[in-house]
Amino acid sequence: MLRVFICGGSGYTGSELLRILALHDEIEIVGVTSEKSAGLSVSELFPAFFIYRELKFENLQIEKIKDRADVYFLALPHGKSQQVAAELIQAGKRVIDLSADFRIKDSQIYTLWYKTEHAFPHLLKEAVYGLPEIYREKIKNARLIANPGCYPTSVILPLYPFLKKGLIEGDTIVVDSKSGTSGAGRKAEVSLSYCEVNEDFRAYNVAKHRHTPEIEQELSYASERNIIIDFTTHLLPLNRGILSTIYGKLNKNITTKEALEILEEAYHSEPFVKIMPEGQVPAIKYVRGTNYCYIGATVNQRTGRIILISAIDNLVKGASGQAVQNMNIMFGIEETKALKNLALSP
Amino acid sequence: MLRVFICGGSGYTGSELLRILALHDEIEIVGVTSEKSAGLSVSELFPAFFIYRELKFENLQIEKIKDRADVYFLALPHGKSQQVAAELIQAGKRVIDLSADFRIKDSQIYTLWYKTEHAFPHLLKEAVYGLPEIYREKIKNARLIANPGCYPTSVILPLYPFLKKGLIEGDTIVVDSKSGTSGAGRKAEVSLSYCEVNEDFRAYNVAKHRHTPEIEQELSYASERNIIIDFTTHLLPLNRGILSTIYGKLNKNITTKEALEILEEAYHSEPFVKIMPEGQVPAIKYVRGTNYCYIGATVNQRTGRIILISAIDNLVKGASGQAVQNMNIMFGIEETKALKNLALSP
Amino acid sequence: MLRVFICGGSGYTGSELLRILALHDEIEIVGVTSEKSAGLSVSELFPAFFIYRELKFENLQIEKIKDRADVYFLALPHGKSQQVAAELIQAGKRVIDLSADFRIKDSQIYTLWYKTEHAFPHLLKEAVYGLPEIYREKIKNARLIANPGCYPTSVILPLYPFLKKGLIEGDTIVVDSKSGTSGAGRKAEVSLSYCEVNEDFRAYNVAKHRHTPEIEQELSYASERNIIIDFTTHLLPLNRGILSTIYGKLNKNITTKEALEILEEAYHSEPFVKIMPEGQVPAIKYVRGTNYCYIGATVNQRTGRIILISAIDNLVKGASGQAVQNMNIMFGIEETKALKNLALSP
Amino acid sequence: MLRVFICGGSGYTGSELLRILALHDEIEIVGVTSEKSAGLSVSELFPAFFIYRELKFENLQIEKIKDRADVYFLALPHGKSQQVAAELIQAGKRVIDLSADFRIKDSQIYTLWYKTEHAFPHLLKEAVYGLPEIYREKIKNARLIANPGCYPTSVILPLYPFLKKGLIEGDTIVVDSKSGTSGAGRKAEVSLSYCEVNEDFRAYNVAKHRHTPEIEQELSYASERNIIIDFTTHLLPLNRGILSTIYGKLNKNITTKEALEILEEAYHSEPFVKIMPEGQVPAIKYVRGTNYCYIGATVNQRTGRIILISAIDNLVKGASGQAVQNMNIMFGIEETKALKNLALSP
Repeated sequence: MLRVFICGGSGYTGSELLRILALHDEIEIVGVTSEKSAGLSVSELFPAFFIYRELKFENLQIEKIKDRADVYFLALPHGKSQQVAAELIQAGKRVIDLSADFRIKDSQIYTLWYKTEHAFPHLLKEAVYGLPEIYREKIKNARLIANPGCYPTSVILPLYPFLKKGLIEGDTIVVDSKSGTSGAGRKAEVSLSYCEVNEDFRAYNVAKHRHTPEIEQELSYASERNIIIDFTTHLLPLNRGILSTIYGKLNKNITTKEALEILEEAYHSEPFVKIMPEGQVPAIKYVRGTNYCYIGATVNQRTGRIILISAIDNLVKGASGQAVQNMNIMFGIEETKALKNLALSP
Repeated sequence: MLRVFICGGSGYTGSELLRILALHDEIEIVGVTSEKSAGLSVSELFPAFFIYRELKFENLQIEKIKDRADVYFLALPHGKSQQVAAELIQAGKRVIDLSADFRIKDSQIYTLWYKTEHAFPHLLKEAVYGLPEIYREKIKNARLIANPGCYPTSVILPLYPFLKKGLIEGDTIVVDSKSGTSGAGRKAEVSLSYCEVNEDFRAYNVAKHRHTPEIEQELSYASERNIIIDFTTHLLPLNRGILSTIYGKLNKNITTKEALEILEEAYHSEPFVKIMPEGQVPAIKYVRGTNYCYIGATVNQRTGRIILISAIDNLVKGASGQAVQNMNIMFGIEETKALKNLALSP
Repeated sequence: MLRVFICGGSGYTGSELLRILALHDEIEIVGVTSEKSAGLSVSELFPAFFIYRELKFENLQIEKIKDRADVYFLALPHGKSQQVAAELIQAGKRVIDLSADFRIKDSQIYTLWYKTEHAFPHLLKEAVYGLPEIYREKIKNARLIANPGCYPTSVILPLYPFLKKGLIEGDTIVVDSKSGTSGAGRKAEVSLSYCEVNEDFRAYNVAKHRHTPEIEQELSYASERNIIIDFTTHLLPLNRGILSTIYGKLNKNITTKEALEILEEAYHSEPFVKIMPEGQVPAIKYVRGTNYCYIGATVNQRTGRIILISAIDNLVKGASGQAVQNMNIMFGIEETKALKNLALSP
Repeated sequence: MLRVFICGGSGYTGSELLRILALHDEIEIVGVTSEKSAGLSVSELFPAFFIYRELKFENLQIEKIKDRADVYFLALPHGKSQQVAAELIQAGKRVIDLSADFRIKDSQIYTLWYKTEHAFPHLLKEAVYGLPEIYREKIKNARLIANPGCYPTSVILPLYPFLKKGLIEGDTIVVDSKSGTSGAGRKAEVSLSYCEVNEDFRAYNVAKHRHTPEIEQELSYASERNIIIDFTTHLLPLNRGILSTIYGKLNKNITTKEALEILEEAYHSEPFVKIMPEGQVPAIKYVRGTNYCYIGATVNQRTGRIILISAIDNLVKGASGQAVQNMNIMFGIEETKALKNLALSP
């Protein structure tokens, strides 16, 4: 049994790890931390997770945790992972970090968007961006996985094959993303309270969302030139799911059918990417509670643009499910283990 | 123009007063307080209320506010109204208190349920329970209105005519109420956050909700003997509205038709109470955003019980709308002024 | 591999069987019917269920289906199951019927509530009511399972131990149930459309819901006398889940703690029943997407009533999950197979 | 009193006219039609609208209705208005058509998108596009108003001032719109049922929505050259509201502040257009139930694009409220009459 430790188990990505791993029969959860809930058992905080009656939240103390597990998931607030990851790596452990701390390769760009110096730039370099559809081979032997952001996962997967082939003009990409409210985390804030979010819809962080450089980095790698995008995020009145609608000017006249073939070619052997048939669109309900990413494409012949639409569950393929997928790859476990369930629908 | 002052304008009952009074052409809002938002204009905190660009939240200081208005609405947290009301009454002002502070006539019962002594028991006695359908005449000349609770309004109105006539056995009453989330107030709490409330439903405060003695007091007055009820409240995943389902054993064999006639007889001249035809049920969507209370009745001949169902908007007839109705009555204004709109539907 | 056939796969209970069985590794789905969608593959109708690309909906013709499987799930409209079940039983097959057709033992009561004669009264007698917590032994060898209704499951489980012990006065039981909208089925009706249900809440079928005799039958068996209840159902603006709030007069003075011990004693070895600690309440979010039933109890010393609250997912423990649980029991498979997942939360 | 007749009163735009006009004190509703509900009173179909007890739905027969009113609102399905409008105009009446039938000036473009010949091309020419912010003077004397589509209202208002000034490159405009479900109408369809829409989000009619030519027409007029846009619509799980996020490449380097000044300059005297301060975004909750359009702007200096965001209530400013605004203008009534209420919030 692989011994698993979760740092930060009381937020939504941490609790989602607990939910997913409950069905994983090759691992054992040996510990979980939470500063706020230390001392409580997991089932006391989350009565739905009654199986974790004996598992108690503890404080995060490296000395006390570093010898207990084979792999550590860090589901900590952004900025809090750096130190913990560094010390665990130092102790010879493998780490999957769900925060943004190790996703940006260029420490200057990191500083520009996150308004702080990175404390471990050498680990920035070493960290493998944990998007298996692109970096599976590197993930296998990685010590440190920078688990991708939810929005970036939903944007990079559909765009990647087209940028790789140089089919989209780099300066024409507009990404309009919409996320369920769990993406904002488990927080006590009036603006996230039920009455404020319900029956409302709005954009946030217009032209300054921190997932922008992460997307641009991977798209730039794909196309081998500098990609700058417009990226707007919106808050959906639903719990889970991201739908991204992506626009780009094609520099070659292709049909919708050809666009879909490019996607199929790129992803036909991927267990978690599904391409919609022509004329159909992805929907959040197809992926709720699952690790799948559904992608659709339409070429608008009137405007010469391609419209790519993707749907993921922000907590699964956008966070904890992808993290488990990465763990499976790192430790030679069947990649889809604990991730095979279909969407809860309706 | 009647000069109106609102103490506590940044919570949901306070902001609802601002919304309703925006269409009232015989009053003028001369001031509004908020400790948290003092200094901000109302439109800065609530961009939807753009007409209040010039109205700034201020701190609540009796000396500074007591000479500025003819009537004061207190939309303060429970327990915070007592002192303010006492001082305003002392200053010769008329007060409509939306909190629970003056609703319970018996100060011992108040202490039993609210776990604190009442500071102004003589005002408890003087305060008029602001349910116009029962106390309209007393309201006209009242100095201090104890504006009814949301649940009690939804429970007393349907039961009152039957208890008045002695048709229901007093110890058989079960009240199962369900409220939209705005009833919990505008608060930063994880348990009220969107992801926690959405797609969930649960009871709360089982067998100990503080609206219990308020309901029992008014039902006891109606029936001229001591009524004790079971009262369970639940949290609905919607913003506004209360639906109460009420059960009681009839001590006389009446039909559904006769039950409806009793309701019609009691309320046919009331502008805000609507009785459903036989076979139809009230719904929250019929009253959303309005001051109406819809009531339906069914007699179950198999069990000998009457099932009364009522629907109100907890923020309007259950709070701020009823408060405005009381103000209209107190100052000789048309009772339905600013309260005539139909439900926002869908 | 057990060969499974689903009659009626395009409604919500049918599609839920497809979802649950996707993770069951001891069965194989050999066929599925749908009159409306015959000819389509399952994945064409439900893109979320992409694994069923090769499984096509077919018309329901007994001759064509009766030799293909070991067990037949009937997820047909009420009234449509009788004939199909009879013919499959005739052909020596085992049948799990999710409709109401075989739940009422007394054909006269069936006729009274369902307004039609039962065509196979001898099968009414033979059918085993598929509530494993009560009838597990009979289920093992049953040819025909009458899978319980969603509401009855949520009402019988909490009340059963108390009625068995004679602790509740039989004529005082009031059941106030609230169900998510999937309970109404997958239908094209204005009254079930999004805009009508969202932000609304109302009762329906007051004093005449057809699950009443089913509940009364099982409670009468438990208490060995005739139980008649008041039962009111309401439509919740959420997809999945039933919460039932149940009131009954205790005929013996017990505490909340003792009430909870009675529940624990009855269900401590049941894999799918969870009793809440004192002071805590069940919630729909604890059971969403799962086969669990959470139960809480409070004794109100002021009124002498017990308040029992239960939560289930109407499509899982209230329908298809319970049906799979029954199948597992009937065929000697581990009872919790394919039913172990925790609630999708948030 | 102005005599008003509503053709098509049982759909959402028709019922919204009934709701809004209930507070209009200079008009009288003399009749309302509905083929499906003929014979029922309005309050029987819509219990929330109890004031219309005496108003009965009737069948639409021109001969019977053409002499009874001064103005006719047509809230009929697209394609059904043409004949009715023509006959009423013929009879000397003034008509406000809420359908798409008279919005497209060029009958060939109409045919291209609506797949049918227009029966009254001369009326196409005469009809005034009922967007008061642009065509107020023409509306005053119009016989036939083509009331704008909901999406076009939300897109044209923010873009118009920029295109008028030639500040956006015409071939770079991308419009990503999201609408509440009432925009799909009051229909019995599985795909619009509660369980299907709730917790889901998806695009529809990608690259082929019929509001595209309406938007392009007005933008082309504004900029005096041919504008072709990408326009994607999505279905939001909420009842009311449209939020449009609009992207265009600026051909001149302006700041966000300057962009907002351009909007203020265009709309400062408009009663129903509100410009958000810099750094703030419009939200559907600010406009729910109101006739307001809130607009925000951000210039992304990294990409050279302007991001315009607008919010309206699709049933009010996007349909029936705008229709009442047009009626007020046409008949010399105060333009904001019956439209002054603030948003129902929360």
